[in-house]
Amino acid sequence: MTDTIDPLALIADMGRRARAAGAIVAGLPSDARRAALAAAADALRAAAPAILAANARDMAHGREIGLSGAMLDRLMLDDTRIEGMAAGVAAIADLPDPIGTVIDRSARPNGLQLSRIRVPIGVIGIIYESRPNVTADAAALCVKAGNAVILRGGSEAQHSNRAIHAALVAGFVEAGLPADIALLVPTTDRAAVGAMLAADGVIDLVVPRGGKSLVARVQAEARVPVLAHLDGINHVYVDGSAAPAMAAAIAVNAKLRRTGVCGAMETLLIDRAYPQASALITALAEAGCEVRGDAAARVLDPSIAAADNADWDTEYLDAIASVAIVDGVEAAIAHIAAHGSHHTDAIIAEDERIAERFIAAVDSAIVLWNASTQFADGGEFGLGGEIGIATGRLHARGPVALEGLTTYKWVGRGTGQVRP
Amino acid sequence: MTDTIDPLALIADMGRRARAAGAIVAGLPSDARRAALAAAADALRAAAPAILAANARDMAHGREIGLSGAMLDRLMLDDTRIEGMAAGVAAIADLPDPIGTVIDRSARPNGLQLSRIRVPIGVIGIIYESRPNVTADAAALCVKAGNAVILRGGSEAQHSNRAIHAALVAGFVEAGLPADIALLVPTTDRAAVGAMLAADGVIDLVVPRGGKSLVARVQAEARVPVLAHLDGINHVYVDGSAAPAMAAAIAVNAKLRRTGVCGAMETLLIDRAYPQASALITALAEAGCEVRGDAAARVLDPSIAAADNADWDTEYLDAIASVAIVDGVEAAIAHIAAHGSHHTDAIIAEDERIAERFIAAVDSAIVLWNASTQFADGGEFGLGGEIGIATGRLHARGPVALEGLTTYKWVGRGTGQVRP
Repeated sequence: MTDTIDPLALIADMGRRARAAGAIVAGLPSDARRAALAAAADALRAAAPAILAANARDMAHGREIGLSGAMLDRLMLDDTRIEGMAAGVAAIADLPDPIGTVIDRSARPNGLQLSRIRVPIGVIGIIYESRPNVTADAAALCVKAGNAVILRGGSEAQHSNRAIHAALVAGFVEAGLPADIALLVPTTDRAAVGAMLAADGVIDLVVPRGGKSLVARVQAEARVPVLAHLDGINHVYVDGSAAPAMAAAIAVNAKLRRTGVCGAMETLLIDRAYPQASALITALAEAGCEVRGDAAARVLDPSIAAADNADWDTEYLDAIASVAIVDGVEAAIAHIAAHGSHHTDAIIAEDERIAERFIAAVDSAIVLWNASTQFADGGEFGLGGEIGIATGRLHARGPVALEGLTTYKWVGRGTGQVRP
Repeated sequence: MTDTIDPLALIADMGRRARAAGAIVAGLPSDARRAALAAAADALRAAAPAILAANARDMAHGREIGLSGAMLDRLMLDDTRIEGMAAGVAAIADLPDPIGTVIDRSARPNGLQLSRIRVPIGVIGIIYESRPNVTADAAALCVKAGNAVILRGGSEAQHSNRAIHAALVAGFVEAGLPADIALLVPTTDRAAVGAMLAADGVIDLVVPRGGKSLVARVQAEARVPVLAHLDGINHVYVDGSAAPAMAAAIAVNAKLRRTGVCGAMETLLIDRAYPQASALITALAEAGCEVRGDAAARVLDPSIAAADNADWDTEYLDAIASVAIVDGVEAAIAHIAAHGSHHTDAIIAEDERIAERFIAAVDSAIVLWNASTQFADGGEFGLGGEIGIATGRLHARGPVALEGLTTYKWVGRGTGQVRP
């Protein structure tokens, strides 16, 4: 618990312990990982008093150092939140096990029987900020997929994280898993984050969970592969063929259901041929959204503010939207290519041909037709949770859950084949 | 063609052009990419005289600067090799198109229809050495999967590469593809390689093709994701239950069929309970292999040399093998975990339970039972070629061909769903 440890040596040692534990857990039958997560859920419930006491220390310290109300809310735990955390871990326990599943198989002409089998990635590093529930969430997903996890939470949540981590490990160990399967970095020294990001070959994958400055630092520094998204500059394009009631309902939901999530709409693109454009802008404004329009949008509704060039590249994460009038689906595609962040974009259209053109041409992790961008979420996609949403192009894209925490190996079963 | 261009600006500009071309090619119907590769194969055949003339310049220069016989052989083209290159491109043309295939689909309780669709990665960088055929091979695989490619070959093959590249592009353009779909870096300045490796966001994936020093440089410097393997320290473990004739045939083939390939066996592990160990070592030695054994192996065959500690971590790529006597499958698994390179490892055994234990526990990209490690090859795996073999843990593992050159997007088709 001292901050004077050499961070590189610390992470290297934790990585070795984690890898050894992961090799054991990866080899266990599916039910052992399920039972261990169920035991961890129970242990979290049993440890609620200790977790609340630890959280009270973090909250007191947070008030002392003047954390904002929003930050304190993210940090705060109560019985309901602890029960939610435990229920989340229990739900992950019961998800289908990805490990050992056969991705595909083939028989070669020489009789060699080939298959690809899902295996864990190995050691996953999670770097996160003030939400202590990430400790339980992320660890549960990693361990369910047979990985070891190295957790590095924010200093403002350190006592909560330690208490949650201790409960999880108690559950794991009670169920027969090695304690090192989930390690918490025991220092709040920021150099430990740098050591994790430099730990190529020690940590196989880093997932940052937090605000944009954390993700940006991780992406800039990491020598280790990273699964993340930096921005969610998401568009809803309302085609001329859109049904007006649906268009208004989706635009309002996409922007305003929750404005702080990465799946929120930031820019509304309206086809010049859409007859209800003015009513659509009014619906958004009346729902409580500040609308910033281009010149054509301000002709339709002179009450809205003017968008400047920066608006098209801005993730407001607030009740603000930019609105542009575009010439049909091709112009919408071009706007998204120029300004989007490859996260989530949607078209509202009754014309299927136009919708399929949009789906084919928009190069984003998630492309939706006649649905709200707020569905961009692993739980909503039926993945049983998510470790994050990735906008990179390798390994996994969009919401990442258990499958994205695995890799595969090739297995060939022969009868003595040699290569001519 | 001047070497005074700023390499960062050059690669950034090539990347922009490649991405624009890739977006066009990705959107074409499958048959357009097939036809373009068929046209490129024909163009290669038609350009044979020009390619041979260019290759003669490279060969003359290679002799002048004293390239080794092996290097000159890698560089040399003749009519047979050009026809082989063209036939390879034509075969890739006819492979099943991965683009647009549906990986999986699901219907959510709210009626949202989700699917994951294969899409190209985007811009692939290939960095290679003296084999000019990589120009055609790698470009064909990348373009078949809808990607743009930026090729950077070795300076010793520059004239050959330019002639092959010109032929490919002529075929592509004749078939209606944009010329920028396959770009050849027009400078032999080594700084261009550094610029490619730094081109995060410009190049989506780099594949090095060549010797260990090239791969090591790429892995050490790259800010861009890399698909590669550094070492192929591959093991054959002969279990006590192995059939002796099969064990000898596979060990000899795995080591000696071709000693310079990454799938060659480097270390033979023999179960102490295997009754024919002495005959196995003799078979390997009599086939022309220098055998370096541990103490127990030298008791069985005193004529072999002694292995030292470095031998277990050495990729000989030559007719040399290290041999260790181990205590059963668990000791073999431990040896491979300590010394292997996660490339290809094999067990020879008649006992299925022991074989399955080996398959489950050995953490390599390819694990084989009763088959030679020399099968580690995309063509042998039925992939229609390979861009390389990857020993990393993310995105793709083992032989990588068309599927590994794709990613996916999530598509959701709704009927007006908003998120509660």
